[in-house]
Formats: sequence, C-alpha cells, structure tokens
Amino acid sequence: MPDLAAIVADIAAEMAAAPDRGTPASYIPPLAAVDPARFGIAIVEADGTVHAAGDADMPFSIQSVSKVFALTLALGAVGDQLWKRVGREPSGSAFNSIVQLETEHGIPRNPFLNAGAIVVSDILLGRHEPREAIGEMLRFVRNLAGDDGIFIDEAVARAEQETGFRNIALANYMRAFGNLHHPAERVLGVYFHHCALAMSCRQLALAGRYLMAGGRNPDTGGSVVSARRARRINALMLTCGHYDGSGEFAFRVGLPGKSGVGGGILAVAPGIASIAVWSPGLNERGNSQLGTLALERLVHRTGWSVFEPR
Amino acid sequence: MPDLAAIVADIAAEMAAAPDRGTPASYIPPLAAVDPARFGIAIVEADGTVHAAGDADMPFSIQSVSKVFALTLALGAVGDQLWKRVGREPSGSAFNSIVQLETEHGIPRNPFLNAGAIVVSDILLGRHEPREAIGEMLRFVRNLAGDDGIFIDEAVARAEQETGFRNIALANYMRAFGNLHHPAERVLGVYFHHCALAMSCRQLALAGRYLMAGGRNPDTGGSVVSARRARRINALMLTCGHYDGSGEFAFRVGLPGKSGVGGGILAVAPGIASIAVWSPGLNERGNSQLGTLALERLVHRTGWSVFEPR
Amino acid sequence: MPDLAAIVADIAAEMAAAPDRGTPASYIPPLAAVDPARFGIAIVEADGTVHAAGDADMPFSIQSVSKVFALTLALGAVGDQLWKRVGREPSGSAFNSIVQLETEHGIPRNPFLNAGAIVVSDILLGRHEPREAIGEMLRFVRNLAGDDGIFIDEAVARAEQETGFRNIALANYMRAFGNLHHPAERVLGVYFHHCALAMSCRQLALAGRYLMAGGRNPDTGGSVVSARRARRINALMLTCGHYDGSGEFAFRVGLPGKSGVGGGILAVAPGIASIAVWSPGLNERGNSQLGTLALERLVHRTGWSVFEPR
Amino acid sequence: MPDLAAIVADIAAEMAAAPDRGTPASYIPPLAAVDPARFGIAIVEADGTVHAAGDADMPFSIQSVSKVFALTLALGAVGDQLWKRVGREPSGSAFNSIVQLETEHGIPRNPFLNAGAIVVSDILLGRHEPREAIGEMLRFVRNLAGDDGIFIDEAVARAEQETGFRNIALANYMRAFGNLHHPAERVLGVYFHHCALAMSCRQLALAGRYLMAGGRNPDTGGSVVSARRARRINALMLTCGHYDGSGEFAFRVGLPGKSGVGGGILAVAPGIASIAVWSPGLNERGNSQLGTLALERLVHRTGWSVFEPR
Repeated sequence: MPDLAAIVADIAAEMAAAPDRGTPASYIPPLAAVDPARFGIAIVEADGTVHAAGDADMPFSIQSVSKVFALTLALGAVGDQLWKRVGREPSGSAFNSIVQLETEHGIPRNPFLNAGAIVVSDILLGRHEPREAIGEMLRFVRNLAGDDGIFIDEAVARAEQETGFRNIALANYMRAFGNLHHPAERVLGVYFHHCALAMSCRQLALAGRYLMAGGRNPDTGGSVVSARRARRINALMLTCGHYDGSGEFAFRVGLPGKSGVGGGILAVAPGIASIAVWSPGLNERGNSQLGTLALERLVHRTGWSVFEPR
Repeated sequence: MPDLAAIVADIAAEMAAAPDRGTPASYIPPLAAVDPARFGIAIVEADGTVHAAGDADMPFSIQSVSKVFALTLALGAVGDQLWKRVGREPSGSAFNSIVQLETEHGIPRNPFLNAGAIVVSDILLGRHEPREAIGEMLRFVRNLAGDDGIFIDEAVARAEQETGFRNIALANYMRAFGNLHHPAERVLGVYFHHCALAMSCRQLALAGRYLMAGGRNPDTGGSVVSARRARRINALMLTCGHYDGSGEFAFRVGLPGKSGVGGGILAVAPGIASIAVWSPGLNERGNSQLGTLALERLVHRTGWSVFEPR
Repeated sequence: MPDLAAIVADIAAEMAAAPDRGTPASYIPPLAAVDPARFGIAIVEADGTVHAAGDADMPFSIQSVSKVFALTLALGAVGDQLWKRVGREPSGSAFNSIVQLETEHGIPRNPFLNAGAIVVSDILLGRHEPREAIGEMLRFVRNLAGDDGIFIDEAVARAEQETGFRNIALANYMRAFGNLHHPAERVLGVYFHHCALAMSCRQLALAGRYLMAGGRNPDTGGSVVSARRARRINALMLTCGHYDGSGEFAFRVGLPGKSGVGGGILAVAPGIASIAVWSPGLNERGNSQLGTLALERLVHRTGWSVFEPR
Repeated sequence: MPDLAAIVADIAAEMAAAPDRGTPASYIPPLAAVDPARFGIAIVEADGTVHAAGDADMPFSIQSVSKVFALTLALGAVGDQLWKRVGREPSGSAFNSIVQLETEHGIPRNPFLNAGAIVVSDILLGRHEPREAIGEMLRFVRNLAGDDGIFIDEAVARAEQETGFRNIALANYMRAFGNLHHPAERVLGVYFHHCALAMSCRQLALAGRYLMAGGRNPDTGGSVVSARRARRINALMLTCGHYDGSGEFAFRVGLPGKSGVGGGILAVAPGIASIAVWSPGLNERGNSQLGTLALERLVHRTGWSVFEPR
C-alpha cells in the first residue's frame, strides 16, 4: 500500500504552489466570492482510515456532485423504471445543452447532465412537497457521511433560483415532451437545493464510501444500493461524470468521478478508496483544474486507475 | 479464481440457444453472408492460459476492432502529437456521423469513430506506400497474437472500397480542413485493409494481451507500449469503444472494449484477462448482440468489472 | 382585372368539396374543437372593394398571423434597433425549435418564429403592464381593420398559458442570454394574448391592407409604417412566413404570406390586394392545407404572383 | 420609367468610390487574383434595351450563378421528378454545409446549395459523358445570352477540382444515400465546369432574360421554360439564392437573385428587367458586398422590388 499520508501532503503542497489555477464559476455571487487559492483533499480507505490535507474541512458548494446522491436516492425510489426517462450515454455536449432534447423527444442523455438531474429531481419530488424531498435528500447525504453537520447553503439555492433561466428552460422543455410530471418551479426547487449542498472534502469522501464498497455503508454495514447498482453508478460516473470532458478525465485519471462547478470532485477507486478534492478554479470544460491535476498525480503514485493491471 | 473453463462452456451453450441474435451487417456481401448462428469466445488469462468455446477458432472480419491496433501503432509512430489531430471524448453520435466534423473544424472526437480511424490511417501511411503501411499493420497484429495465420480478407477490403462512400466523404471532408495529409484514396486503402483483418476469437484475445498486461507482450516480455499508454488506450475503449452505445456497454459490462460490425468485441480486464467474443448479429447501435450479452454474463460470474471492488 | 367575384366563389366551392383537408391543431381544446369543414376567403382590392365567400365572416384564432401586426407595432416603438435582437433569415427549422438559439446566442433567426415573436412581445411590453400592451395591440389591429368587433379569445389565451411549456422554455432560454428584458411570465402574457386574437377573413384582409398599400391605412390615408418598412415586412413574410414550409409557399403561391396554426393565412399582392383565407386543417408543416391550395388557385387565375411579369 | 442610363452611371460612380469593398474569395488562385477595384453593372429591359456601366464587359467567374442555368436545364430534362431528389426550402446554413444531409437522408434542401447543385449536375450528366454534358450547358447559356463568346475558364475548373475536397465529400455523402447516380468524379467534372463559366455582366443579364420574360427567350420568342416554371425558379432565387444571407437580400433588395463567390449576382425584376452586377469583394455571407449595395440602390431609385405596390 502506498504511503497515503505522505502522498496527500505532497499533493496539497504541489497544488498550493500551482500557478495555473483555472477560473472559479462566476454566474452567482456566492460562487464568485470563493477564494481561488483554496485546495483540499480527503481520502477514505476501505478500512475507514482518512487522509486529509489542505482545506479538507472547509465546506464548499458541491453543486453537480450532488447528482450522484440524487440518482442513488431516485433509483431507490423507482428502480430501473428511471431509465425510461433518462439515458445512460455520454452526450458529447456541454452540461446545460438543450439541443439533444429536441431531437431525442425530451429524454436527457444521462442523469449527470442538468436536464437529466432535473428529471431525477422530478422523481425525488414524487408525491412530496419540495421541502420534504429536500429534507429527505439532506438526511440521506448526512447518513452516508455519518455527519449531521452537512447543510444546504440557502444563499446559493436562492441565487440559483434567481438566475437559473437555462434550467427553467430545460425543465419546461422536458415538460412539453411529458418528461416532467410536476410543475417546473417545484422540481427546480428540489434541484437547486440539492445542488446547494455544502460539504467539506472529508464529508464528501465519507459520503462516497458506498460506491467504493459495493453499495454498503461501512458505518452501518447496511446496503445503500445493491452491488450491481453501485457498479453501474460508477460506470455512469466514468463515462458521463465530467460532461464533455469525461473522456479526458478517464484518459488522465482513470477513476469514476463526478465534478461540480463549485470546484469539487468525488472519485472512487472501487474496493480501495473514496476520494474528494476541491479547488474552485475551473478548466474550460467546467471541471476543477487543480482537482483534476491532483487526482492525476494521486493515481500516478498509487496505481489506482481502474485501467491499470490489478 | 472462478472456474473459467466451466464459465466459457456455459456461456457458449447459453448463446447457442439464445433466440434474439440481432441482425448481421448487410452493407457488403461478405458480411451479409456470415451465418448468424455463429458464436465464439476466448479468454487469455494473465498467466497465458486460454479458455475457448464455440466458434473460437473461426476467423471473422474484425472491422473496427482493428482501430485499437491501428491507434497503438500510430501512437508508436508519432506519440502524443496524434492528439492534435484527434480528440479523446465520446461523441454521442453514430460511428459514421459527419456532423461534428463541421462544427469542430475537421477534428474527429475520438480515434474509434470512422473519421478518427481515418486520421490514424493517415498517420500510419506516413511516408510509406499504402501496401507497406498495410503490411506493417499485419505484421504488428501477427506479432501481438504470436500467430502468422492472421490474414487480410481481400474480398472484404475490395467490397468496402466499392461501397464506402460515407468514408470517402469523411476523408475528403477532413482533407478540406487540412486534417488529412495524403490523398483520400491512399488513406482509405490503408483504412479499408486494416478493417478487413480476419481473426479468430483466440487470435484476437491473444493480440489484446498487451492491454491487459500494462503494455507488455507476454510472449516476448517486451514493451508494446508504456504502461501509461496501455492504461489510456483502455480508458478510450471504455468511453468510446462502442460508439453511441459506449455508455450502455460500460453500464452493463464494465470493461474496456472495442466492437466491430463483423460482430467481434475485444474486452480487457486489466491484470486479469484479455477476452474476445464473436457473434455476427448486431443490436440497434451496431454492436454484437450476443457478444455483449456474453460479456455481461462473464462479468457477472467473475466479478471482473473495473467498477467492482477489487 | 380578373372577375374576382367569380373566382372567390369558384374557389370556395372547390374547397368545400376538397377531400384532403389536413388536420386541425389539437394541442389546446379550443383549436381542436373547430369544425374542419370550415373554409373562408376574403379579398380586399386596392380600391377597397371586398370579395368574400364561404365562412369569411366567422372569427377564428389567428395565432401566428398576429406576429405580423406585433412586428409592425414593435418596429414603430423601437425602429431598426429591433434587428439587434432578432434576425431576418429563414431558419430552416420548425416554428418552435430551440436548437438555433443555443448556437446563436439567444438571437432568434426571424420575428415569425415563436422565439422571435416572444422577443417582439418583450419589446411591446416595454415599460407597460401586460394588460396595457395587450390593449394597445388590440386597438392597433382594430384600427387597421376599421372594425371594433375584433376581440381576444380569453379561452384560447388561457389554454395556451396552461400548456405552453415550449414557449416558456424558449422565453427563459433567451432570458439566459440576456435577450429577454422582462420576466418570462409577463412577456408570454402579451404573446399568448396577441396570438389569441379572433378575427374573420374579412377583418384579417382589411387589417392587412397597409402591407398592400405601401404602408398606408386606406381608411385614414395615414401612414402605418413607411413604404420601405412595408416592403421589408412583405419580404420577411415571403422568406419566413410559413416556417420550414416558406420555400414551398413561395414556390407554389408566390405571395408574401403569414400563416397561423388556427388555419388562417394573410397574403399580400403589393399594390393589388390583401387576402385572407381560413381552413382549420393543417399540412405537415403546420400551415393550412386548403388555405394554401386556395391561394395557389387564386394566383393561378389572377397572375398575382410577385414572380410573374407585371 | 426611371432614367436607367443615369441610374447605372450614378451607381457605377458610387461603387467606384465605395471604401468598404469586402474580401474576394481566395480559396483558389484564379479568384484570389481578381482586382477588388472592379465593378460592373448591366440591365436589360423588357424591350431589349441594355444599360451598362463600369466593367460591364469584363468576363468574370460566375460560379454559383450558374446553378440557375443548370437547374433550368435539368428541369427541362427530367421535369418535376427533380424535386424528389432536391428540396425547395431555404436551409438556414452555409452554402457548403453537410450537416442537414445527415439528418435528411442525403436530400439537399434546395438546388442552390452546393449539395443541391451537385445533384442537379448528376441529372445533367444523365447518360452522357461529362464532356458532352458540359458542352450542352455551354451551348444553353450561349443561346440564352445570344453570345457565342461565353466560355468556360479551364484554369478555374482545374483549380476547383484540385482543392474541392468539401464538394467531393458532399458528392460521396449523397452517393452513400443513393442520391447520386454516377461516380462523384464524373458528376463533379460537370459541376466544376459549369461553375467555371466566365461571363460579363452584359452576357449574364442577357442570359437571365427568360426569367424576366415569363420563360421566353426574347431573341427567338421561343419558350425556354413554361411561365409557371420561370415563376418558380424566381421564387427559389428569392428564398434560397444567397445561402444564409437570402433573407437579408430579400429584405434589402427585394428581387429574386442568385450570387456567386466570383462576386457576380443575377437579379430579376419580373416583366421589367434582367440585371447583372459584379464586384469581387464578398461580405461575411459570401455574397458580393458592392453587388448587393448596387442592387439596393437600383431598387431604391426604380421601385422595382417585388414587394413594392405595382
């Protein structure tokens, strides 16, 4: 086993000195205000050991990383029926593209595009009030991480709601095709709130353990999802987790991962580790510049790529 | 270790009895003439043990599976310069789509689309005559498999050349953007010939060993490509190896794989096995119907998915 | 001068007997309920003589025909500044396509697409309340037609508002690009109401006289728009007035025209006549099947095509 | 009748002094070599009177203007069967776009796009040798203009053939859909040669007289095409004659017209005049900058727009 304590310390030091840090998202003030100098990393091993460095305990807006948890919860609610309303293919398009919806009858290509996650939110809403669905999501993530300190940043949710015209467009567009069952405002209430989850790298890596562990929650030993479903969520993260930069992430890092515009990435080395990195500056595909680089170095030193001989 | 001898026998028996076998490619007579009842499977373990069943020794047209070998050879020739002319992202489009070339200035999304493989062929052509480039490719694959019985089916190559108008269009279209350096006819001569490679499942699984083995050829111990490059080729196979069915293949099978319209699939379990399956009937994405199902069952029984805890 | 009285009578008789009447719009109940047997025609000559036949005095929902009047009013308000926010090219796409907005930064191709007319409605809204903007539009059309009996069908406007998810999507999508200055709900309030104008063929042909008459209102002699602007609106009607069936309409009829999904068409023979036809059944492009056929026959018998030697 | 002699002289003087002349096509040397200071105009009235100014007698490469004559000839050969293989709608795309062919099964949107004109050339080829088809086309245009001095510029045709990779792509792409009946090289031989027709403004305006005159050749009184077909060709020129600048041309000029990258435009005022202008500098849509401006001024002074009251 590689010396993970030394590795995370090295990587944090290298990232602190990195000159090209990308550009933080600026479309809402709470994201624009984040200090681009931040960098955090946390690794949870299969046995529960945690290695952390940098700003690993500072909460940040996980944004689209939450789509993994939302998908997991929605699959628990409706099972594989979900796949009648959302595809499983990389889109080759940007996260907020509306083009494919027109030619593909309102069925988003995958659950990690905005459109796909909005359908997932529609499923989460189910027969509930938005407030209840949001509460359930928060409890789910707190439970996964074993940490009740996780919260939803209302300022972020509100800012999204005030400026999220593209997402309102996506939701209504799918509603026109019958692929949204509730009013767009209610569905987007759920969507914007789960995207506004604030978590630290440590909390995020802990929450992701079930994907490393064949679907089980190591704290309780209980099954979050079946082993098969965990494997499939990992597959979706690898092929679709970084929008139109997913191929590049697989090429460079080689781990299932999901990024968010807040600069966080959750990555999974099945059977080995759950990893979270965070640095607010984004590359031109909207994925964390230093987060990706840090994972590339981690994989280089550990040999954890799923494409490496075991 | 699972009882592979029993598993391949079981799978071959199940596939022989499968009612829905898909539809063989019919665009050229030599492919249309293949018996849809055929099914073969061969697995080469890391220690060299081979398990085979069904029509595992019957040569078939490997078609696009050859794009993996062509890419490997071209990377050897020009290194990462290749990525200036070809992308590394899934396209979300069919294998022969021309649409993205128009908006993306003649740069194909990845080397496993027809357009991408045509650029790779342009690189293989280099300063050679087409005949020499084809000869080099054949020697390379024979060497990888350790089998001089591998041949190019001239009837297939000729039929492709007579009807390959879409590929002629793709080549000329990229030439208009300056992304083809040789005349289309010469490049397509190379392309159509390497797609016309005839191999059995056994030969194909043997030829794929370097991708399982960190880039080394187990016969010689020599390095075919670096470990890093082998890992990256595996990543590309996983994200892009099945055209617009790549996400689905990752979801169901979870192994790097490359399919061809001849009904063959090469799949890689890094460090564990190189696998080839063949059945001529295709699903609606152009990938082998029973080949995919066979791999799904294999992975189910062995736990070889790269998304499974190790 | 051809015998217009006889011609309109003949056409009405032929259309009454036409077997293939197309399919009425069914997306909202008030349109689905219209009797497909209806057909009306009214022609106003330059000297004011009116020829009418069939259901020429029955009000119908003019729908997108209203986009001509809305454009005229908006040009009066902001002049050629309007063209910074809306293009002047045929789109080659369906009336409600969202695809081009994504690649063209939220600028609709022309003012007769839904997206374009929504921008026009945003301009009409200006500093007013929606109710005032709608009132101004109604007064404008009444004044053009010289008929205070023209009204807005509130049942139609309400039904549009309840089901117009695509239009809500278009509006929000443009808002995301900054090309909508007011909240989508307010703009669509204006849009849905002017599309819900109910007019008879006679009223519609009277309202269109200014486009025949170099921009002047024959009742008052006053200028509605300049001669140059009238000419340009005619040009836009010819190139863009029938969505992705505009080329076909020009080919068959050869007059500037604007159709609506209610089955109405306003057509203009500059200097000669303003013409309105109505039949609720639509062809596969969403334009009135018999309305188009009636205009084709009218032009055949009168030689009024703008492409005919004068 | 306006004083056309004075008008053409004025316009030629204004164009000589125009500062912003656009940019000549540079994709082949013979076009790049043309002096951007050139400007010519010729008007043939219905009675045969010719008014000319500037470089009205200097031959230039008519390029895509030839598509009008090719379409006329092909309609004569196969009649309305032609429309099974080519559409009649503006495309909303650039002249050499390949995108729509993919989604519309190899049927070009209209005969004035490159793809459409290549299908037209395929029809012209018919059972002939390319040389014969080219000869027939040359005789046809000479006959229309009543001038045997019209020739094909072999240097232009050769240069097109050497660099026309996009057109080769378009032709092969349509062949893949079965919408090209002869080998691409032979069809493109015809296409490149008719695009290489060299004509002066005077010759071009004379050749266009049949479109002004209801289909008749004023020299002979014979019918080139029926009145109905002439009207329809005019309609196509108006909706599709300037690629994705067709709407703008209709808006500004209001005459059926066809442009070419050589800087020529043929425009038709039905019943009144056939007009040709030429200036090599192009605007951003690939249409002659000063040619368009000259026509706009001509129409302003004569009131010849088809959208003006008669």
